[in-house]
Amino acid sequence: MEIITSNQNSKVKLWTSLQTQKGRKQSGTYLLDGWHLVQEALNFAAPIQAVIGTEDNRKHLPEVPQGVPAFQVTDEVARHISKTNNPQGIFAQTSLPNNSFDPQYVHSGRWLLLDRIQDPGNVGTLVRTADAAGFSGVVLSNGSADPFNPKTVRSMQGSQFHIKVIKDAELGPWISALKENDYDIYGTSLEKDSVDYKTVYPEKNFALVLGNEGQGLDPDILKETTENLHINFLGKAESLNVAVAGGILMFALN
Amino acid sequence: MEIITSNQNSKVKLWTSLQTQKGRKQSGTYLLDGWHLVQEALNFAAPIQAVIGTEDNRKHLPEVPQGVPAFQVTDEVARHISKTNNPQGIFAQTSLPNNSFDPQYVHSGRWLLLDRIQDPGNVGTLVRTADAAGFSGVVLSNGSADPFNPKTVRSMQGSQFHIKVIKDAELGPWISALKENDYDIYGTSLEKDSVDYKTVYPEKNFALVLGNEGQGLDPDILKETTENLHINFLGKAESLNVAVAGGILMFALN
Repeated sequence: MEIITSNQNSKVKLWTSLQTQKGRKQSGTYLLDGWHLVQEALNFAAPIQAVIGTEDNRKHLPEVPQGVPAFQVTDEVARHISKTNNPQGIFAQTSLPNNSFDPQYVHSGRWLLLDRIQDPGNVGTLVRTADAAGFSGVVLSNGSADPFNPKTVRSMQGSQFHIKVIKDAELGPWISALKENDYDIYGTSLEKDSVDYKTVYPEKNFALVLGNEGQGLDPDILKETTENLHINFLGKAESLNVAVAGGILMFALN
Repeated sequence: MEIITSNQNSKVKLWTSLQTQKGRKQSGTYLLDGWHLVQEALNFAAPIQAVIGTEDNRKHLPEVPQGVPAFQVTDEVARHISKTNNPQGIFAQTSLPNNSFDPQYVHSGRWLLLDRIQDPGNVGTLVRTADAAGFSGVVLSNGSADPFNPKTVRSMQGSQFHIKVIKDAELGPWISALKENDYDIYGTSLEKDSVDYKTVYPEKNFALVLGNEGQGLDPDILKETTENLHINFLGKAESLNVAVAGGILMFALN
């Protein structure tokens, strides 16, 4: 196994470049940081370009599939690759999933559509929550946080290996395709013509659309939905965090 | 109005010290950063020691109560005081609320109890969600994130002015006092003897207890609850973010 001790090594430079969107795009890969994520990638047979571990971690490595290059790095290199303060010292470089629309996606299951959700933590938490709620996938519009940046990847906790995560999408065509397949589309709105989510019991496949943290859903999308939902507040808070609102709606509509 | 141009000014040093727990404890105050929070503090008549604004912001300042010192600072000083990358340039120094237990609290309303929730964003989001769900207050155990650190304050979005936020609490005596007042106490657990939250319809006042992100609820607390709840997952995710789980439970139990 190759042992890497310098931050100037070309592979280390590649792995570090995966902290940026440019680096991920150029290589078509992103980085998994920590035991849980590496294990999930192996469990779900994700395409892995490299497994990287410090000496301590390499000993405990689960079986790495044949043909996957494994590298040992120093603690200093591990800290250089990682975006966390105290990395566990175990990483995997894995392929970005295919992001293109596939007509077979919209024939079954529930989908979460995100309109310009900007906080990486919110995007990651929503993907994890959609997974827990049994959704088939999450579709992110242009202008959403990149689901494969280090912070989002940390928040997703491996859910990208369980359900589809599709980025840079045009939500309009997705909504049209879903409606053609007899989906109900639930938007979210604070307007008076919206309905209390507690009165809604979906009877067929549906998609839920959540909007930008500050501005809410694009008005053009609100016009295309089957129904727009709101959450009644009992206290004085003016809004909910979008990931919390998404969790309440996904689990209530199930 | 006093105009402050140097980061070495003693007041600037005081305001900057509020980024740390030590500084907040010594002064008995914390900092509100941004228009929304300052406005909420004024609307809810919070005790304010100082309002601080850059020249641009000072012009648009709402009416500051008589006797509250107001200060004008440079953009550079504003960036020094703030923990955000792009501060709005408007701040208020306000008193930490009283943290002691008061027997009158536990006679009415719903309470959220947090057992060692460590992420400041989670604590802040849970306080904001408890507010939206009409809870009376949030009680944080020893070992929870400080609700008055800058990141938590940002996530709370002013909800600390709407409901009680009590920190450094011993949850055991709180639970005893609540039970003496005929409260139901709902814990959260993944164990088999826990019940699906969707089957629970509270008929009287209740408290919900949420546990540490990694370890869950303290076993000693689980023994003291009336009932322990779990959320059924339909997908492959192993857990939910604690703030999302809290939101689902608070809104479902209402």
